[in-house]
Amino acid sequence: MKTDMSGDEFRRFGHEVVDWIADYLENNRDLPVMPQVQPGALEDALPAEAPEDGEPMEQILADFRSLVLPAVNHWNHPRFHAYFSVSASAPGILGEMLTAALNTNGMLWQSSPANTELEMVVMRWLRQWLGLPDRFFGMIHDTASLSTMHAIAAARVAAVPGVREGGAPANLVVYTSEHAHSSIEKGALSLGMGRNQVRKIATDDQFRLQPGLLQAAIKADRAAGLHPCCVVSTVGTTAVTSVDPVADIQQIADSEGLWHHVDAAYGGPAALLPEMRWMLDGAERADSLVVNPHKWLFTPIDLSAFYCRRPDVLREAFSLVPSYLRTDQDDRAVNLMDYGVPLGRRFRALKLWFVMRWFGRRKVEQILRSHIEWARELAASIAADDRFEICAPTPLSLVCFRLKGSDEANRRLVEEINRSGFAFLAGNVLGGRFMLRLAIGHVRTTREDVQAVWSRLQALAGSIASAG
Amino acid sequence: MKTDMSGDEFRRFGHEVVDWIADYLENNRDLPVMPQVQPGALEDALPAEAPEDGEPMEQILADFRSLVLPAVNHWNHPRFHAYFSVSASAPGILGEMLTAALNTNGMLWQSSPANTELEMVVMRWLRQWLGLPDRFFGMIHDTASLSTMHAIAAARVAAVPGVREGGAPANLVVYTSEHAHSSIEKGALSLGMGRNQVRKIATDDQFRLQPGLLQAAIKADRAAGLHPCCVVSTVGTTAVTSVDPVADIQQIADSEGLWHHVDAAYGGPAALLPEMRWMLDGAERADSLVVNPHKWLFTPIDLSAFYCRRPDVLREAFSLVPSYLRTDQDDRAVNLMDYGVPLGRRFRALKLWFVMRWFGRRKVEQILRSHIEWARELAASIAADDRFEICAPTPLSLVCFRLKGSDEANRRLVEEINRSGFAFLAGNVLGGRFMLRLAIGHVRTTREDVQAVWSRLQALAGSIASAG
Repeated sequence: MKTDMSGDEFRRFGHEVVDWIADYLENNRDLPVMPQVQPGALEDALPAEAPEDGEPMEQILADFRSLVLPAVNHWNHPRFHAYFSVSASAPGILGEMLTAALNTNGMLWQSSPANTELEMVVMRWLRQWLGLPDRFFGMIHDTASLSTMHAIAAARVAAVPGVREGGAPANLVVYTSEHAHSSIEKGALSLGMGRNQVRKIATDDQFRLQPGLLQAAIKADRAAGLHPCCVVSTVGTTAVTSVDPVADIQQIADSEGLWHHVDAAYGGPAALLPEMRWMLDGAERADSLVVNPHKWLFTPIDLSAFYCRRPDVLREAFSLVPSYLRTDQDDRAVNLMDYGVPLGRRFRALKLWFVMRWFGRRKVEQILRSHIEWARELAASIAADDRFEICAPTPLSLVCFRLKGSDEANRRLVEEINRSGFAFLAGNVLGGRFMLRLAIGHVRTTREDVQAVWSRLQALAGSIASAG
Repeated sequence: MKTDMSGDEFRRFGHEVVDWIADYLENNRDLPVMPQVQPGALEDALPAEAPEDGEPMEQILADFRSLVLPAVNHWNHPRFHAYFSVSASAPGILGEMLTAALNTNGMLWQSSPANTELEMVVMRWLRQWLGLPDRFFGMIHDTASLSTMHAIAAARVAAVPGVREGGAPANLVVYTSEHAHSSIEKGALSLGMGRNQVRKIATDDQFRLQPGLLQAAIKADRAAGLHPCCVVSTVGTTAVTSVDPVADIQQIADSEGLWHHVDAAYGGPAALLPEMRWMLDGAERADSLVVNPHKWLFTPIDLSAFYCRRPDVLREAFSLVPSYLRTDQDDRAVNLMDYGVPLGRRFRALKLWFVMRWFGRRKVEQILRSHIEWARELAASIAADDRFEICAPTPLSLVCFRLKGSDEANRRLVEEINRSGFAFLAGNVLGGRFMLRLAIGHVRTTREDVQAVWSRLQALAGSIASAG
């Protein structure tokens, strides 16, 4: 009985898919970034039931192109400027192809040594790029949400040693800034801590957590009989890419005995640049840190790098084998399942290894530096156009701006640029006012792309103003 | 400045990688399944630092073949019989290639409509294959560990409505069988419930949870002032693929007001077969269920299908937007980030869509049925060889057996077959005795493969006995 495709069939369709991907990477600037579809359109276009008999791959690929693709929002398009701009580079895609074919699960060292060891290698390489000390243990999660949830769970175990057996007390408190990513609150909520146990500390005029207010909040909570256990600082907030004062926060964490987790999911890679290394000053003493190569390091989704200075606490939080029952084993044969929730572990390290080797450090620096430069150029152009205003500093590669005038005009602006298909931006409410966010980070974005988007925005601003 | 590879370069290396994969899928029977490497060998063979300047893809691919591959345990080999036997079929690999190239993130409907809608479509298709009712809301997680953690978190919110704001009380209890997967205990531990709050109910002589003992444990816990909140039944346990009496457990969950989660991660797909549909009898009334297409449905790792009859409770557990603040939106534009921990969501549905369409229901049934038949044939052959004994029934496609005699002889047997490279099996301790597990589930495994492994095991048994 024939079960899977033959090698020849795979070769034929594999080449077809590779050619399609090559064309897509070269030419997707011609596609509308955001799809023009109504909710349910794709669902309705597909059969209500899976087929009884297998269908030819020709038909499946044809349907992919004619039905699925028109409902895709093109994150891998150089003018996708919403959220954070991410990219699947060609070397990363090649890595993913091999990961899929090998289909290994690195839950244990023995279950596939290459998975665990290559993960250790790329986590060490990246740690060096970020200038973090050797004592940071690195491992890969799917998303920063999971990395941060693991950090908060570890903080809880570090604060209350009995959690492992008896469960967590209800009086633990987590601190972060009002501009922190939703994953901190989500992590606490998921862990059963409740939203009331998350304090969102106010920020200064540059949207950075104010250490004095953090200190005061901890004091007030202690006075109320609560148990402060964790603080999360952010290097590159989602709304405006502000950078919290990591060293000052670390000092408070030290004196108060709090776990300090640094959320550098987006901003982290920029610490490769000597001129941006200041962002992580103090992080070398933090307890944990997350940085996402699938954001600003050209690695296909998903790959979140999680570092922890205290892997013993991670084991205490997540290993089902209590430390007193562990048998001696070679300490290089790490079983990564013992350090987190997921048992199954896809071979994610391979694509990052491809990316880091193919680009090399110098090229990555060059590209990141140019993204930051273009963002600052764009901010200057916007500031020079008196119809517009800049809403926040541009420390990294995100520009926050708005039309002077009503929120409605700004909402129209973002809707019209998105509907045009030329670029995709997201809006956001900051300080009660609607603003636009233009994120630069795609590996194939050029200075000309950014300038062309700005020209379109200027033209739309003119037509919105005259429509009144 | 040249940033990424050109389309032509990607085309060239993409074709090379496709040709390599085609050869690998056709010929990997010739590779030793388990690698012969010492811990640290791959780490030591690779540079201590990432390169300063980019390296040619030729070199990266050469190192992949000469350094990484020898440290790979070949999960995608037809004679990988350890853990559960999984497979990345060729159509699934093609789907992964396109997922990597598109690099979309389906956190919101708007962030890529195709991601959310294709996920709804394949989850519906699979629900129909499993005979589950329409009211089950389906979504994709990476692993069953995450799916089950979400189920327990939802159970907690359903039991204690205040969890969302004020945190979880310490008296909640989760029930499962002594043969349940470690992910249930891990989930409870991660959620901060503590291991003391997980009851492992004893099983009968066929390793199935005993409903009477479950009932008694609940009663004792209530008498002690605890709050029973969740029971997890298993359809295909990891050690022996036993099937818990789902309908009886559902009845207890109903009368006691417990959340009932069904862990059908491995066994679920077999419910496609009319003769195996009994396994899920009662599951139509359960609160949640997990089945992993990346186990026994030919889909590359990772893809875990999570069904929930009460999506409102999932939202209550995980959405940062409280229900009273939700704005009206089209109910077909589901934002999947509101139903779980991870914000980022890879386009995993695409590969399952490829797999379900290319195989079709009839072919999947044929393949699963043959796996079960070969497992029963093998069990009969083993039972007929008086040097061996069968350790557990064979309801699905896993055979549990041992040499009559010492644990040491059995450990030698599994070590020798693994060291030979011909097949890879895992051992396990059951009822205090070491046994071997031979799992059948790879899409390209043949009856001849299984028979050849059995012949090797018989020959090794002979040499172990004579060395004895």
